[in-house]
Amino acid sequence: MARTGRRPGNPETREAILAAAREAFAERGFDRSSIRAIAAAAGVDPALVHHYFGTKEQLFLDVMQAPLDPAVVIAGVLSGGVEGAGERLVRAVLSVWDSPAGAAVLAILRSAVSNETFAAMTREFVVQRILRRIAKQLRLPPKEAELRTSLVATQIAGLIMARYIFRLEPVASAAPAEVARLVGPNIQRYLTGDLSA
Amino acid sequence: MARTGRRPGNPETREAILAAAREAFAERGFDRSSIRAIAAAAGVDPALVHHYFGTKEQLFLDVMQAPLDPAVVIAGVLSGGVEGAGERLVRAVLSVWDSPAGAAVLAILRSAVSNETFAAMTREFVVQRILRRIAKQLRLPPKEAELRTSLVATQIAGLIMARYIFRLEPVASAAPAEVARLVGPNIQRYLTGDLSA
Repeated sequence: MARTGRRPGNPETREAILAAAREAFAERGFDRSSIRAIAAAAGVDPALVHHYFGTKEQLFLDVMQAPLDPAVVIAGVLSGGVEGAGERLVRAVLSVWDSPAGAAVLAILRSAVSNETFAAMTREFVVQRILRRIAKQLRLPPKEAELRTSLVATQIAGLIMARYIFRLEPVASAAPAEVARLVGPNIQRYLTGDLSA
Repeated sequence: MARTGRRPGNPETREAILAAAREAFAERGFDRSSIRAIAAAAGVDPALVHHYFGTKEQLFLDVMQAPLDPAVVIAGVLSGGVEGAGERLVRAVLSVWDSPAGAAVLAILRSAVSNETFAAMTREFVVQRILRRIAKQLRLPPKEAELRTSLVATQIAGLIMARYIFRLEPVASAAPAEVARLVGPNIQRYLTGDLSA
């Protein structure tokens, strides 16, 4: 059967490159990770990395998606409908960040904060993969969807900063269920509350 | 009159060092700014920088305080009492970040996110200079003060991230008054609302 586009390649090689890239981005951030070093760590030729993943930016996006599929996380959160979605969203976010994937996602956030190109990439990822999906699944009115979901993003981003980067107590050590109970209603206001009040 | 501790020194020299440090931290972040380079930019001997400011960390804290005094900003916000404090706090934060001092504060945030020592320094600064002051002026119940003000910090930190670092629309371009209207009530819930609900 004829195929167009990039060949999927050997799955084991592909996984080895992804694992090496994830480790490199997590340890050194985006700017200081080279395709050459990632290829060396994976035991392959740099040309093969380009062949499978294209640019370093594309490799990064693949790494971002590798530890977790936002679609799956979000679908779980939102399948219960709009009621209580704020609290479920907080629980889902904390479950990802507290998981082994959390370190990789934290490294991505660090890179995004220190590099404008990278901040833009992360923003696009969050808008397209997460915020629009939330808006669609909760059937937010199209005219309000961007505003409401961007406000949600402000609260989630700050929760992550305070808990995982600044380790601000008592938010940093509180149990996930407790954080969800405290922060959830504020997310819920952004999603479905009266914002003109 | 006998004095103990570090000599205040020539005010003009001190200001020149502070200005050079502010520019260095803003352009290159904390890690990549050296006392030697800061001294050179200020036209003084590195020993004089150490004499006036001590370590690079202490110089940084002086720079952080230089563009604005959090005590003054916060006093203005909270002088109106607890009613509407959430909205006034958002307005005050945006007025600082939209001002010429904003670039320096943004650089500090970038450094804090990429460096754990620095994150801890920034956290101490925020807790002691800002959050405790808010709690005291609003007379929050001592048992709840840390929790309530740390929740406020999550929302403010995320608002800054979304508006100034990720430039997430429509939050990034919305007028300060509009942002205050949207986010203020959520801050207000953290300050004075029923958190068990």
